[in-house]
Amino acid sequence: MKTLIIVSHPEIDNSQTQQFLHEGSKKKGVLWHHIEGLEKIDVLKEQKLLTEADRIIFQFPLYWYSSPSGLKKWEDLVLTRNFIYGDKNYPLEGKEFGLVVTTGLPLKDFKKGASENFSLDELMTPYRAIADKAKMIVLPIFPISQFWYMTESVQMALLVDYQRYLKQEMPDTLQNRQKWFENELQQLDLDLNIKDKKITEMILTSFTERIEELNQLNETLEIIKENDEN
Amino acid sequence: MKTLIIVSHPEIDNSQTQQFLHEGSKKKGVLWHHIEGLEKIDVLKEQKLLTEADRIIFQFPLYWYSSPSGLKKWEDLVLTRNFIYGDKNYPLEGKEFGLVVTTGLPLKDFKKGASENFSLDELMTPYRAIADKAKMIVLPIFPISQFWYMTESVQMALLVDYQRYLKQEMPDTLQNRQKWFENELQQLDLDLNIKDKKITEMILTSFTERIEELNQLNETLEIIKENDEN
Repeated sequence: MKTLIIVSHPEIDNSQTQQFLHEGSKKKGVLWHHIEGLEKIDVLKEQKLLTEADRIIFQFPLYWYSSPSGLKKWEDLVLTRNFIYGDKNYPLEGKEFGLVVTTGLPLKDFKKGASENFSLDELMTPYRAIADKAKMIVLPIFPISQFWYMTESVQMALLVDYQRYLKQEMPDTLQNRQKWFENELQQLDLDLNIKDKKITEMILTSFTERIEELNQLNETLEIIKENDEN
Repeated sequence: MKTLIIVSHPEIDNSQTQQFLHEGSKKKGVLWHHIEGLEKIDVLKEQKLLTEADRIIFQFPLYWYSSPSGLKKWEDLVLTRNFIYGDKNYPLEGKEFGLVVTTGLPLKDFKKGASENFSLDELMTPYRAIADKAKMIVLPIFPISQFWYMTESVQMALLVDYQRYLKQEMPDTLQNRQKWFENELQQLDLDLNIKDKKITEMILTSFTERIEELNQLNETLEIIKENDEN
């Protein structure tokens, strides 16, 4: 599976969160594509990248309840009418569409009556509308909130979740998680030269924890089933 | 009352709709401010314009369910945290905030299940969130849909509604409408050199029609009241 991450951040070199995610994104089949870093937006080239991807992700920090202007500029240029829905032709049909949104505020602030008054789902409506128009499959938003307030181990766990968001088969069922973790483990066996030992260890720990969690859940399910049958 | 129209359109000279609205906006106390036409965005100058206005309107054609990127760029630069809500200081508090959104699609397409799947209200959530954050008073969206399919008389009527949106006291009650039309009529008396005779005539016709409408409604109200009392 090919995943294209359209990253929008006007000062990406100053964003430690984005650098951290960038490291995490270095996986087979994942392309990190930083919009503001492009010398010029070549419409056909961008459209080709989109067409080649199976999963397309827009990733950005929340600037005034939306993406930075760089992504909007890219949208206005690259997403031509014909490329999205013109002439009943849908080049992006059936691809998955995800959003990775980073914010300095706690997620609990994003709801009616809280300080931000709207949910991220509500705020991201324009992207949802584009994806619908293009007949894409919309994934749940992946929010990253107050990354730098997190402890290192929470950050690492989040990185694993981020990697799952990039590559794991969706929907995010227990089976699909298990499959993904198994695959990661095989990958570790194969690739002993992997650079970031810390990430490797975390994945392994996380995997083990999740497998335990899965087993417990499966046991619970078995008990429920038995009770239902009796 | 001072009204500031922040207009965003990357090719405004080719937009007959915007030219038409521009003509209609030429009223005392209304400032037409075209973002993409600025040589450079001077943050303090822009903030001063906002501070001086009583009503702030964002006006743009719908590009991928949002504004053109020019407005977002302006937002990201001009709307600094401190200018909107920093240090419990709200420079825009109590000002009115409106949106004039033009679209080539019929309005009926903007709802769940229709071709666009979301309402304009839903799509405009990010602007609403900014206005809420700044403690502004949010006006209902003023949508302009398929302007160039309209007959001339419908266009003219819309222009009058647009002018009311710019200047009339809100909420849009019958009393506030009547007051506005009376004021316009006085203005016509005073200013016989007004350039666009066609608009003048339309306003006059519209005014007369509205007054009749108002009188009829008032009569109906009186009848209802009497019936209620009996």
